[in-house]
Amino acid sequence: MKELFYGAAYYDEYMPYDRLDKDVEMMKKAGINTVRIAESTWSTCEPQPGVFDFFHVERVMDAMEAAGINVIIGTPTYAVPTWMVKAHPDVLATTVKGRGIYGARQIMDITHPVYLFYAERVIRELMKRTAHRKCVIGFQLDNETKYYGTAGKNVQEQFVKYLREKFHDDLDALNYEFGLDYWSNRINAWEDFPDVRGTINGSLGAEFEKFQRTLVDKFLSWQADIVNEYRREEQFVTHNLDFEWRGYSYGIQPYVNHLHASQCLTIAGTDIYHPTQDELTGAEIAFGGDLIRSLKQDNYLVIETEAQGFPGWTPYKGQLRLQAYSHLASGANSVMYWHWHSIHNSFETYWKGLLSHDFQENASYKEACTIGNEFAKLGSHLVNLKKKNDVAVLVSNEALTALNWFRIQEQAPGADAQSIYYNDVMRWMYDTLYRMNVECDFIWPESENLDQYKAIVVPALYAAPDELLIRLNQYVENGGTLIASFKTAFTNENVKVSHQVQPHILKNCLGVHYDQFTFPKNVGLTGEIISKKNSLSEAKVFMELLTADGAEVLASYEHYNWKDYAAITRNHYGKGQAVYIGCMTDEDTLKAVYKAVLPEADVEIPEYHYPIIVRKGTNDLGKTIRYFLNYSAVELEMPYEYKNGEELLENTSVEKGAALQMPAWGVKIVEEA
Amino acid sequence: MKELFYGAAYYDEYMPYDRLDKDVEMMKKAGINTVRIAESTWSTCEPQPGVFDFFHVERVMDAMEAAGINVIIGTPTYAVPTWMVKAHPDVLATTVKGRGIYGARQIMDITHPVYLFYAERVIRELMKRTAHRKCVIGFQLDNETKYYGTAGKNVQEQFVKYLREKFHDDLDALNYEFGLDYWSNRINAWEDFPDVRGTINGSLGAEFEKFQRTLVDKFLSWQADIVNEYRREEQFVTHNLDFEWRGYSYGIQPYVNHLHASQCLTIAGTDIYHPTQDELTGAEIAFGGDLIRSLKQDNYLVIETEAQGFPGWTPYKGQLRLQAYSHLASGANSVMYWHWHSIHNSFETYWKGLLSHDFQENASYKEACTIGNEFAKLGSHLVNLKKKNDVAVLVSNEALTALNWFRIQEQAPGADAQSIYYNDVMRWMYDTLYRMNVECDFIWPESENLDQYKAIVVPALYAAPDELLIRLNQYVENGGTLIASFKTAFTNENVKVSHQVQPHILKNCLGVHYDQFTFPKNVGLTGEIISKKNSLSEAKVFMELLTADGAEVLASYEHYNWKDYAAITRNHYGKGQAVYIGCMTDEDTLKAVYKAVLPEADVEIPEYHYPIIVRKGTNDLGKTIRYFLNYSAVELEMPYEYKNGEELLENTSVEKGAALQMPAWGVKIVEEA
Amino acid sequence: MKELFYGAAYYDEYMPYDRLDKDVEMMKKAGINTVRIAESTWSTCEPQPGVFDFFHVERVMDAMEAAGINVIIGTPTYAVPTWMVKAHPDVLATTVKGRGIYGARQIMDITHPVYLFYAERVIRELMKRTAHRKCVIGFQLDNETKYYGTAGKNVQEQFVKYLREKFHDDLDALNYEFGLDYWSNRINAWEDFPDVRGTINGSLGAEFEKFQRTLVDKFLSWQADIVNEYRREEQFVTHNLDFEWRGYSYGIQPYVNHLHASQCLTIAGTDIYHPTQDELTGAEIAFGGDLIRSLKQDNYLVIETEAQGFPGWTPYKGQLRLQAYSHLASGANSVMYWHWHSIHNSFETYWKGLLSHDFQENASYKEACTIGNEFAKLGSHLVNLKKKNDVAVLVSNEALTALNWFRIQEQAPGADAQSIYYNDVMRWMYDTLYRMNVECDFIWPESENLDQYKAIVVPALYAAPDELLIRLNQYVENGGTLIASFKTAFTNENVKVSHQVQPHILKNCLGVHYDQFTFPKNVGLTGEIISKKNSLSEAKVFMELLTADGAEVLASYEHYNWKDYAAITRNHYGKGQAVYIGCMTDEDTLKAVYKAVLPEADVEIPEYHYPIIVRKGTNDLGKTIRYFLNYSAVELEMPYEYKNGEELLENTSVEKGAALQMPAWGVKIVEEA
Repeated sequence: MKELFYGAAYYDEYMPYDRLDKDVEMMKKAGINTVRIAESTWSTCEPQPGVFDFFHVERVMDAMEAAGINVIIGTPTYAVPTWMVKAHPDVLATTVKGRGIYGARQIMDITHPVYLFYAERVIRELMKRTAHRKCVIGFQLDNETKYYGTAGKNVQEQFVKYLREKFHDDLDALNYEFGLDYWSNRINAWEDFPDVRGTINGSLGAEFEKFQRTLVDKFLSWQADIVNEYRREEQFVTHNLDFEWRGYSYGIQPYVNHLHASQCLTIAGTDIYHPTQDELTGAEIAFGGDLIRSLKQDNYLVIETEAQGFPGWTPYKGQLRLQAYSHLASGANSVMYWHWHSIHNSFETYWKGLLSHDFQENASYKEACTIGNEFAKLGSHLVNLKKKNDVAVLVSNEALTALNWFRIQEQAPGADAQSIYYNDVMRWMYDTLYRMNVECDFIWPESENLDQYKAIVVPALYAAPDELLIRLNQYVENGGTLIASFKTAFTNENVKVSHQVQPHILKNCLGVHYDQFTFPKNVGLTGEIISKKNSLSEAKVFMELLTADGAEVLASYEHYNWKDYAAITRNHYGKGQAVYIGCMTDEDTLKAVYKAVLPEADVEIPEYHYPIIVRKGTNDLGKTIRYFLNYSAVELEMPYEYKNGEELLENTSVEKGAALQMPAWGVKIVEEA
Repeated sequence: MKELFYGAAYYDEYMPYDRLDKDVEMMKKAGINTVRIAESTWSTCEPQPGVFDFFHVERVMDAMEAAGINVIIGTPTYAVPTWMVKAHPDVLATTVKGRGIYGARQIMDITHPVYLFYAERVIRELMKRTAHRKCVIGFQLDNETKYYGTAGKNVQEQFVKYLREKFHDDLDALNYEFGLDYWSNRINAWEDFPDVRGTINGSLGAEFEKFQRTLVDKFLSWQADIVNEYRREEQFVTHNLDFEWRGYSYGIQPYVNHLHASQCLTIAGTDIYHPTQDELTGAEIAFGGDLIRSLKQDNYLVIETEAQGFPGWTPYKGQLRLQAYSHLASGANSVMYWHWHSIHNSFETYWKGLLSHDFQENASYKEACTIGNEFAKLGSHLVNLKKKNDVAVLVSNEALTALNWFRIQEQAPGADAQSIYYNDVMRWMYDTLYRMNVECDFIWPESENLDQYKAIVVPALYAAPDELLIRLNQYVENGGTLIASFKTAFTNENVKVSHQVQPHILKNCLGVHYDQFTFPKNVGLTGEIISKKNSLSEAKVFMELLTADGAEVLASYEHYNWKDYAAITRNHYGKGQAVYIGCMTDEDTLKAVYKAVLPEADVEIPEYHYPIIVRKGTNDLGKTIRYFLNYSAVELEMPYEYKNGEELLENTSVEKGAALQMPAWGVKIVEEA
Repeated sequence: MKELFYGAAYYDEYMPYDRLDKDVEMMKKAGINTVRIAESTWSTCEPQPGVFDFFHVERVMDAMEAAGINVIIGTPTYAVPTWMVKAHPDVLATTVKGRGIYGARQIMDITHPVYLFYAERVIRELMKRTAHRKCVIGFQLDNETKYYGTAGKNVQEQFVKYLREKFHDDLDALNYEFGLDYWSNRINAWEDFPDVRGTINGSLGAEFEKFQRTLVDKFLSWQADIVNEYRREEQFVTHNLDFEWRGYSYGIQPYVNHLHASQCLTIAGTDIYHPTQDELTGAEIAFGGDLIRSLKQDNYLVIETEAQGFPGWTPYKGQLRLQAYSHLASGANSVMYWHWHSIHNSFETYWKGLLSHDFQENASYKEACTIGNEFAKLGSHLVNLKKKNDVAVLVSNEALTALNWFRIQEQAPGADAQSIYYNDVMRWMYDTLYRMNVECDFIWPESENLDQYKAIVVPALYAAPDELLIRLNQYVENGGTLIASFKTAFTNENVKVSHQVQPHILKNCLGVHYDQFTFPKNVGLTGEIISKKNSLSEAKVFMELLTADGAEVLASYEHYNWKDYAAITRNHYGKGQAVYIGCMTDEDTLKAVYKAVLPEADVEIPEYHYPIIVRKGTNDLGKTIRYFLNYSAVELEMPYEYKNGEELLENTSVEKGAALQMPAWGVKIVEEA
């Protein structure tokens, strides 16, 4: 790419009156150079089956082309028209709750031939009208695709075929791996295969979810194949990959394997939503960006992010700009808002766009003007930021799903019971790195070349094949630093608990073992790395009772009955070191662990820490770019400890040792000379 | 009416043994002069289809007539017999949860011809036996009718016809008004109309609920037409209108448009239930009474209210009497308990009547004897109390439903999220008036002659037609005082957000505008009207970022990022003034607003305030009656500041300036000379 | 029995590899002499309909027999194979939620002929292969049988037949007793009988649940009849009776009448699960044991209890041993763990056995070795412990169900609302006795010979036939001490509230009456028995407003409006005394009541109290055995105040007046000389 894309989703279809010329004028003023259109407008594009009407698409392309604004075309398939459901009610997914009712988006069976027939036809019609247009720079396949719980008869029959293949038709192998003898669930003939929606078997249930995730891969690559028949080579194909949603983009997406699903894309795209105001930390922007960048180890598109967002997210002065640069600092080549205007009816009326319902120049729009014009000026310095990180976080959909089946404290009685999930552990380990300004990549079980990283952080890798554990062991032996949390290596890829001593194969490099665990109640942590000042240092939620087999004990449990067990250990193994964290802790304790072991791994820990965030990379000019982001409402002063350079936003020179003034929610960008 | 009705619902059908003579004797002792019977007894009156047995009805009428006790006949239609459902399972309403199962009351489809056929027959049979009876003074249609979520195929087909008529068969107009293009919901042929139960479109959903409310109007007027064929002219027709239920009568009924539904009645009737003991404030009695009185701008019947009620409501000494006079103070012409005795089986065993299960003279019954005998003695002074209020509260079912679809903080993440609903805002504005002893009427969007009020209070009129907003503007111009809260005027009657600057048409009289809003977190209020002593003064739940366009700023936000925005404003416009309250506040802040603006509107604010409640009116003798109600457990002394008069209960004269002794939970009634 | 059974459930079927020899070796080392097998393994035993494969059963019997380990055979019927549901989907119970989906255990209709056909066949096949084996000492019928909500058409038709019989075909009697006139529920023809799943009538609903409980009795006795055809006389027949589950074994089982269901057993069996660590109190072990022992007034089997249990239950050092002896102290003749190993797949992966997933000798296993070897050594002194208690607690399934329909604070509005259930009241009364070391039996409404007890404690006997109340009255007259709580005697056995003055027939012996009640808010208790130091003494949750008719007032309410009412009373009646506790209280207040009245009943209250628990009985040698159990983490010293004897575990003599040293979570067992 040659320029940064600054833009918004634009829906001419939803406008209360003809706004196109006025909107283009306001976009130009704001420096907006890209819009995404057509996504989710199927009922407008194809008002009746086989009757097409691309009036809005055509006129927006015309206007944008005239104004020099890029257009991304979204296929409209993630919300189906009424006529399809009226004629074919069974296109709606049958889930564990039964057949759905028409209304919401994302409720169809993405494997249903009726749906696929109509989807293909509307995509082809759309491509015919858009692919050749000059303004069209790329395509987005569908939107935030998931499998929507589809589990009808057709899907379950495919699943049985998938299992027959996986187990080479050997039912004994299936029963053994999944432990189906338990509670009389054993399947002794393929034709006895039960409705999998009711299963209580975590192995079978997790396998079905894994199978369902493959439906997303297939669906997107099927769409990509169609789009590829029409697109010009320079036009990209992307998708809007989203995350586990907890009211905002929180963690690994449970319903999509991002690594697999993104194979068919030419560039990864994403949407990232996050709290703002006093809760704006930048953590989601960094997490989401690091993850999506790692999919193709390349720059990526932020296709959607909030402008005003929910009423609770109305940004404070400076926050919209801080967010925009934070995306770039992670390697994004675009910042695009969902959406340009605020919708006057229906469901997301209070998920506001850049403009409010009145289309006036509000405070957010005015700040966008600043951003857009800075992007235009500095784009060549900021686009295509490349990163080379020393640390990687290993994530796994299989571990997430398995831990969802066996979540910590499942079935546990008592008022203190507190459930944590995979993404809580992942975010605890990631966010602590983020706040220490240790940048990282993400890797997956399939990732090769582990040796390129000086340290690998492994949150709760609950389900993993032996092959991966052997590679991690080897990685340490070769000189790597492994930092693994509790619950790692507990089961194999079929969610069968190992019958070896835990932590199974990793016992070798970690130099510890355990055979019991519990939930901590008033269990402190003690040890050299635990600061006396940290009154919050305690075992949280879950604790394994570790016995060191040669490993150094970094922290032990402070409790009359558990005091002989280790909590956190470090072991030197081969040329490397391996750390095991046997319980959840507060952030300061984890920080102390990182500080104790990362320097030996030769990983740099900057002096700066949150709320000052520093992110770096190399730009197209081969120069080092460093973003300094003040995630606080207070003006801060910080020493600039790097090579002399130029602060790009204010166009001033910065010398090593000088003081950088960081306004509240402010940004500085220094390009080294 | 010539007398107050003091009474109870009476169910001879439910008695464990023959109690009729004994009950009549106990009623007479208690001064009870009216009973309501037959309501909800269908399975007893018509044990098999077409087989009628009015044994209980006849014998109760005989006994009451002999004793000189009035009888109100309730049609028994709100609970259906087993035989009907066994033979015609589809009389049970199909709702968003599917078809119901027999058991509870109020689960049938009130539009179903089978139900209507049987209902008509049993009503006619009942009327034939009762209308001519001397003791029968009136009829209650059904009971607490709602639409019970009915949304089966038949209902939805009617709805589509209703929409075709509303939009003159113009689908484009429908799609435009409801914004159906969003998420591909556009309807391009009437025959594609989807199952509305699943809709996520707030405009379509709210319209369906509005349509469902019309089913209640039709059902009641259909019953009224039948009853009218039989009744004598002096016999009244009423209905038991209830309220939004939050464990007690809380606010506007979401499922009935009271103004429309009460058209077919000759007198409005209601049931009002409320907490007692330490939570007894009188607010629900005042609110419900003011609202029901305003329907026909006339006296009304309290057909049901609690005697002992739930175990948590067992009244303290004096409370039953205080409640009874509070109803009269609002303009009620009756106080009737649900119910006479406590039921020995089934569901409402713990919703106790005046008598406990043992039929003995308990503490509540003894207090009822006092009340009944006072009513008998003073009735001619208390009946037909007329009111002339200066203030009106404008309420709207459409605004309520719309705000339910777009409730404040819908979808908003975060632990602090707090939802408020229409009735919370309404009660905040009403209750503050109540506690200040500013009496008021209620008005509706259809109400004419706004000018009769000196001030109109408008809580969260979220959905309103332009026509109404124009009239409100005009009202201020003509000299009225408008006090409107946040969220007013935001959408039109089809729940389409205005694309004009907010608050849309009211911007003119209010002299403010805003284009952003948010949820307050630690946002104080500051301004001349905000007392320093009020440490609770802060923006709550929702705040609009107001810019005054000439309006006087009564309060601003205290927050580093929002400090330039106004929170509460007052604007002089034409001959009147208009106040806008841009956020929810504590009660004292709202009180300060009222105090700042009502005097200018020439609305009197009494010196007395809660827990002393003062309510007034004019009686049949043309004299001013004033109730003094002590809503506290403490004896209070208050100066009597009105014209000399007579305290009716103790039959003593009261002079201006004298001290009134108000016992705990006590009542005084002064008739001016 | 001649020996204590120490054992575990053993599932060869679930093993990840062949462990049998190694497991037997480890069992022998641990002193384990009994295993339970086959339970819940239907899909393994009968892989296809009519095809049997008892490979695992046979080989385990062989191995155990060789090792001298006893085997209990469980019939495998409580979880159905996939082939049955695939062929006959309607074997799954239809409940109020509709038909289930295959997956979990305990989801079939236990009355369905298809299920019964297959169940009988597999039981017979299993019996043929096991009954003659030397190692097989007994049989467990099914497991934790309940009725699983079964309420399909077939079940409801049986229910109607049951009602016709109960009411001698007299519908009027049915309508009267159940109060069906209410809300038009009256049934005027048997063929109109509605779907009972939707009923809101508490009498009808409770009767249906009572009927459903009889299905469990029938099912178990049907299984017993089959087993009896095959078993040798010395082989026992038992069942694993469980309790209301609140994350652990809490109270009376709502879905089974234990007294009825256990008729077909030769020995009662149970599973008891409870919190451990800091929450280990022994109360559930004592409660469950006292109840199960009382069923047949004989020793019983603990067939399942936790080894490691949930992660939150991982035992502290000493707790596993303390628990084991606590079971014996209640009269158990066995302690058997669920289960030997921890399961590697499926659902209960985190409900851990004695061994962890790695099969190593962990801390729990090591403690089990101590226990097993002590049992072997001391068994002849400990087995067959007989008890003679002075106090009985009267419990009732009917009262439990009725109070579930009319639970305290049902429907009550307000944030303070707090629901309590039957078992809360029962446990409050039982646990207070337990902590005072007053041992007790349980009795049921059918129990005769009440006079054998010096005192009978009656928690919330909400539904009771007159006959029982008359017997309780008589019991007091004859010299007994009755201690009854609020809500006792309120309704008859058909959940029809009495129309007599409350507490109905018991009014005679109790010498109090009431006609009102409420929920206490800030209502203290005052009276001679209330210690000034007990600042927690207040009425909780529910209070009846008692008037003493001759009874002595032990405590009154401290509240300005309720101060004239009594809260707790004691009445001398005939030769006995009767105490009524009109409200829920804290434990210390109840303790004060017990202390005030039990001595007069000649019931001994030991000096020791919780955390020191003392339990006694007579062993096979005719000697008095006393267990001293320290339920705390602190070492305690206590004087031994009984006759000289021998401490069995340490084989030391103990003299009266000597000090017993009780280690943290420690046990002493003294056999009097």
